[in-house]
Amino acid sequence: MSKEPLILDGKLVSDDIKAKLAVKVQELKEKGVTPCLATILVGEDPASATYVRMKGNACERLGIISKKVVLDESTTTEELMAAIQELNEDPNVHGILLQHPVPHHIDERAAFDTIRIEKDVDGVTTLGFSQNAFGFAEYPSCTPAAILAIMDYYNLPIEGKHAVIVGRSPILGKPVSMMLLNRNATVTICHSRTKDLANIVSQADIVVAAVGKPNFIQGNWIKPGAVVLDAGYNKGNIGDCDYEACAEAASAITPVPAGVGPVTIATLLKHTVESAERTVQV
Amino acid sequence: MSKEPLILDGKLVSDDIKAKLAVKVQELKEKGVTPCLATILVGEDPASATYVRMKGNACERLGIISKKVVLDESTTTEELMAAIQELNEDPNVHGILLQHPVPHHIDERAAFDTIRIEKDVDGVTTLGFSQNAFGFAEYPSCTPAAILAIMDYYNLPIEGKHAVIVGRSPILGKPVSMMLLNRNATVTICHSRTKDLANIVSQADIVVAAVGKPNFIQGNWIKPGAVVLDAGYNKGNIGDCDYEACAEAASAITPVPAGVGPVTIATLLKHTVESAERTVQV
Repeated sequence: MSKEPLILDGKLVSDDIKAKLAVKVQELKEKGVTPCLATILVGEDPASATYVRMKGNACERLGIISKKVVLDESTTTEELMAAIQELNEDPNVHGILLQHPVPHHIDERAAFDTIRIEKDVDGVTTLGFSQNAFGFAEYPSCTPAAILAIMDYYNLPIEGKHAVIVGRSPILGKPVSMMLLNRNATVTICHSRTKDLANIVSQADIVVAAVGKPNFIQGNWIKPGAVVLDAGYNKGNIGDCDYEACAEAASAITPVPAGVGPVTIATLLKHTVESAERTVQV
Repeated sequence: MSKEPLILDGKLVSDDIKAKLAVKVQELKEKGVTPCLATILVGEDPASATYVRMKGNACERLGIISKKVVLDESTTTEELMAAIQELNEDPNVHGILLQHPVPHHIDERAAFDTIRIEKDVDGVTTLGFSQNAFGFAEYPSCTPAAILAIMDYYNLPIEGKHAVIVGRSPILGKPVSMMLLNRNATVTICHSRTKDLANIVSQADIVVAAVGKPNFIQGNWIKPGAVVLDAGYNKGNIGDCDYEACAEAASAITPVPAGVGPVTIATLLKHTVESAERTVQV
């Protein structure tokens, strides 16, 4: 294919989401409510620290309060759960984000599930997953929601398409599979034990890369005209797809960086504002 | 293929499960606990009445108490939820089964989600679905669990196989997809909006029919040597697969009746006994 693919510009999509949010934040403030996202960072992982800082900055640029909780690497599961519980009970906090991954000695699932569903704006709780899978979650997992937001922004059809998801994590591969299924895609979920991955990916109309391995998805796996969504974000700003090669075949593709990433953050802010709006409605 | 397929005998698998359960029921009774499954039937649907009766009889044959709650067709969602709440609070009830489907005016999801997770032996709650999807449910949805029990009884490999699920309901298609995925199958989920279904099914090493349409899956869709699991149970004891034609190609196949059905009931009893055991351990 000599035709250039459509570059799915995550900056453009996130700016569109944030412009709408700015209006809502203003309206909330006039009602005396300032949306507040609490972020919890456990330990010293530099990438995680960067993500939390980016999310905090994005909040502040929109007038959303960013409440930062930083816990020591040696924090126990119980201590982390207590910190989350405190945020659950704080009426001024509308959303809680626990930065993934936490140190290995912590039970991350137990910590995630301590977050009250009403404040689970990152969409990481067990209950939130199934609400999402059944189509009625208030806050679907942010990266999957971002992927769908990008497709919708560009009017890329989902119904009847064959979507192949590479990866099966509880906060990315599994929820995006369920969301695309609920939008009437036929969905195939692949992973490290999948045999003949290239052959399966080559049948996809929509490829979602959610595997966490740099340049893993090869260009010659992509069916000409397929839509490629790269949710990978590996060291050195490298995605899960070999971008140049995949772009040769794709009709549309997200770059890394400035693809799924910024929209994920905008989605997190959107959920936080929605949560704040719900407290006003009550 | 002239070779006869292996008939996956649901009666044999369920007898095996029930023989083990009989011992456990005896042990529980010696400790003063008789397992009890409460079934709720709303309305007059004859098929539903038959299912509930079969489940009740299966309980009684094993010495499990079958507590039958029968509610009028005109029951409201609130009345049904109140009836479930009463069973939740009854310490002598170890499992609660709400027979699907309920009359249209009832919010079935709300009713299912009234069942306490500790008594959700049928595996129908929203929270139970995601616990299952994340691999830590105590009581996975019974029909999906039965499908896996049959495969395990016959030592049919799952890891690395391509499983194609036809159907995406919250109590069958979606949970069986997650369970096969957690067992390291590559999983494709198809449904009414899937294009070129025959082509997708023809790539499957494992076919799960969960669509509720008699003789829907055609024999010439089945890859020679595939394993066919038919969870359909339509009027006149007819499965979702055209049995004779599918059996020509399959290496192993469940008949209808006497395939998945009896194992589903045995699984329900197993979960009820496990729930009773947990009350003794506490």
